[in-house]
Amino acid sequence: MSYRFADRLANPHRSFVKEILAVTETPDVISFAGGIPNPRLFPTKEIAAAVEKVLGQDGQSLLQYSTTQGYLPLREYIADRYRRKNGLKVSADEIIITNGSQQGMDLAAKLFLNKGDGVVVERPSYHVAIQAFGMLEPSISAVPLLSDGVDPELLSRACGRDGVQLFYAVPTFQNPSGLTYSSQRRQEVAQILARHQVVLVEDDPYGDLRFRGDRQTPIWAEAEKAILLGTFSKTVVPGLRIGWACADREVIEQMVYAKQATDLHTSIFDQRVLYQYLVDNDVEAHIAALAQAYKGQCDQMLASLRAHCPAAVGYAEPEGGMFLWLSLPKGLSAMRLFDLASEEKVAFVPGQAFRCDGGGDDAMRLSYSTLDEAGIEEGIRRLGRLIERELAD
Amino acid sequence: MSYRFADRLANPHRSFVKEILAVTETPDVISFAGGIPNPRLFPTKEIAAAVEKVLGQDGQSLLQYSTTQGYLPLREYIADRYRRKNGLKVSADEIIITNGSQQGMDLAAKLFLNKGDGVVVERPSYHVAIQAFGMLEPSISAVPLLSDGVDPELLSRACGRDGVQLFYAVPTFQNPSGLTYSSQRRQEVAQILARHQVVLVEDDPYGDLRFRGDRQTPIWAEAEKAILLGTFSKTVVPGLRIGWACADREVIEQMVYAKQATDLHTSIFDQRVLYQYLVDNDVEAHIAALAQAYKGQCDQMLASLRAHCPAAVGYAEPEGGMFLWLSLPKGLSAMRLFDLASEEKVAFVPGQAFRCDGGGDDAMRLSYSTLDEAGIEEGIRRLGRLIERELAD
Repeated sequence: MSYRFADRLANPHRSFVKEILAVTETPDVISFAGGIPNPRLFPTKEIAAAVEKVLGQDGQSLLQYSTTQGYLPLREYIADRYRRKNGLKVSADEIIITNGSQQGMDLAAKLFLNKGDGVVVERPSYHVAIQAFGMLEPSISAVPLLSDGVDPELLSRACGRDGVQLFYAVPTFQNPSGLTYSSQRRQEVAQILARHQVVLVEDDPYGDLRFRGDRQTPIWAEAEKAILLGTFSKTVVPGLRIGWACADREVIEQMVYAKQATDLHTSIFDQRVLYQYLVDNDVEAHIAALAQAYKGQCDQMLASLRAHCPAAVGYAEPEGGMFLWLSLPKGLSAMRLFDLASEEKVAFVPGQAFRCDGGGDDAMRLSYSTLDEAGIEEGIRRLGRLIERELAD
Repeated sequence: MSYRFADRLANPHRSFVKEILAVTETPDVISFAGGIPNPRLFPTKEIAAAVEKVLGQDGQSLLQYSTTQGYLPLREYIADRYRRKNGLKVSADEIIITNGSQQGMDLAAKLFLNKGDGVVVERPSYHVAIQAFGMLEPSISAVPLLSDGVDPELLSRACGRDGVQLFYAVPTFQNPSGLTYSSQRRQEVAQILARHQVVLVEDDPYGDLRFRGDRQTPIWAEAEKAILLGTFSKTVVPGLRIGWACADREVIEQMVYAKQATDLHTSIFDQRVLYQYLVDNDVEAHIAALAQAYKGQCDQMLASLRAHCPAAVGYAEPEGGMFLWLSLPKGLSAMRLFDLASEEKVAFVPGQAFRCDGGGDDAMRLSYSTLDEAGIEEGIRRLGRLIERELAD
């Protein structure tokens, strides 16, 4: 059978990433490739208690069709937490519940992109975000990250091009680089976007997982036109697929229309279970414990890198999140290392996966989120030995 | 703040439907407007038992990220049930789990529609399907329904136009008309689509809710290129948002790619709860009881129409599903009746809502699914009186 698929599916990058990720799923591999939370830290018992409580309430409305914008008490909780934690002024009607923050990208793309419009992303950038925006066939360009955020001069130049509608960024504990924008860079970005009337899509899945340094306010607070994406996937559990988008009412209204066409609404059962969990537990204590656990894993990885990895390999110390980004010395290839590491039963994601414009063979993403200290130590020891051998060649 | 939204959002039909549906949500109204299952028939206790069982199994994998294609045992269950009930040869890898069948429309649109490509729908057609396909800016044309299915001659003509990619149909207990395609019509449709190499998107949310006549095989079985959409929303519960799409492997592979970009995956918790419910209960007995209950409501509506409605109003007896479609005599306006009925605290959906090409003021959709016999009798009595008064004017 030969189907004629739409042009948007012809993405040459696609099978590459798929093959990479397939390799990383082999058993017995020490995998630094994932970007998933540590399931040992899930509040499984508390979720079970929330389920039981919710089932005792009202089975009919719990299982019936529900509103597209999402469960109001949950939206109120999210708005209230933004006020408490980030000093953001947000009301429940400026929030829509989505299937994870991934759906926020799909909806933002549907809202703002005609074919051929411009999208600016960070270099490197989260590969499934590129995939989501790519579905509407924009012209995507990437602006390099400096140590304290995106390069402002190049961002301004990229946003000044004709037809640029969106800038997608993960300013805190970025995926894949682990970097965090400074306060100054945040202000600059807000100003640049306002000047060019470009809408910010600020993805903040990791912001709560800070274990060093000072909390930063989302750029959203200062941006003129912006959508802030959030999720409970990293702070509670990902399996329920509950995220949200936060934006001006007129944007949310369009998102509700787009989401209705996309899937009517997000599971009301999951929304109510999650809400019950949130109000019945000390969530801030849970998140603080999570951050401490990730700190332990991150510090172990940093110590192992210092002990086993040649000094020519560069990396910055993350202040939170799940990722560490290695820059390889000249002459080394992340793809070649990836193949060699597979033989040694170690996996990571080569930098190419996070590039929409080629390149990236000089870097790799390591995640420490799901491994214990011994696994991290052993994996980095193997990797370090490989890199040393490659440098000696 | 003035945002520049994408062209796809400029749908002139949109606020009309929204206003109609807002009116129907007023309390104290006898509403024939909904298209939702009767919550009194939900297997709430059985779902609660399934939840409890699943929570006792493995909290970590239940709440972690999961595969985009969906929970394998659930896909196997769906494939097996198609074999048992419809004689369809389907395997689990020809199925993807979606957020209700609505998401199947979003994914089908993403897979097959470049801007300007043609989509053919039935006249009348499910309005949120038109909305879903409309997001990719196709040219949509509608082919009228005859009493036993879509008009084959006009379908052939519509599919023969340049660039037509998809035909969207609900061949069994159609929404909104309640009509069911005959076997002959099904064969003809499969042949017409094959001749023009148009992909069928067959939406079958109601097929199991048959209470009269013989079971029909989905057109999918005979079609050359087709996607069959299913859902548990009408047979179990809608709140969990579990549906599926069934198609050739190469289509499913593209759908997995598109769904990954859209929301990564459907709630694994909900998938496993639903699966547990399905294997622990006599689902066929439950569905048979549902169909009997809807039969009772449908028969009450038919009896009330005979008793209270002028003979000039036309309607066919549905063989299943949730809807009855009234054709108004010349000179009567569904929108005017809608306004008058609001004053009498009765609601329905005027035919305009199901038209992408204007018209429809000569018909209205009534749903009997959520009302008891007394409510149906009283609502139809009020409606009949109004229609009589209008005819006398």
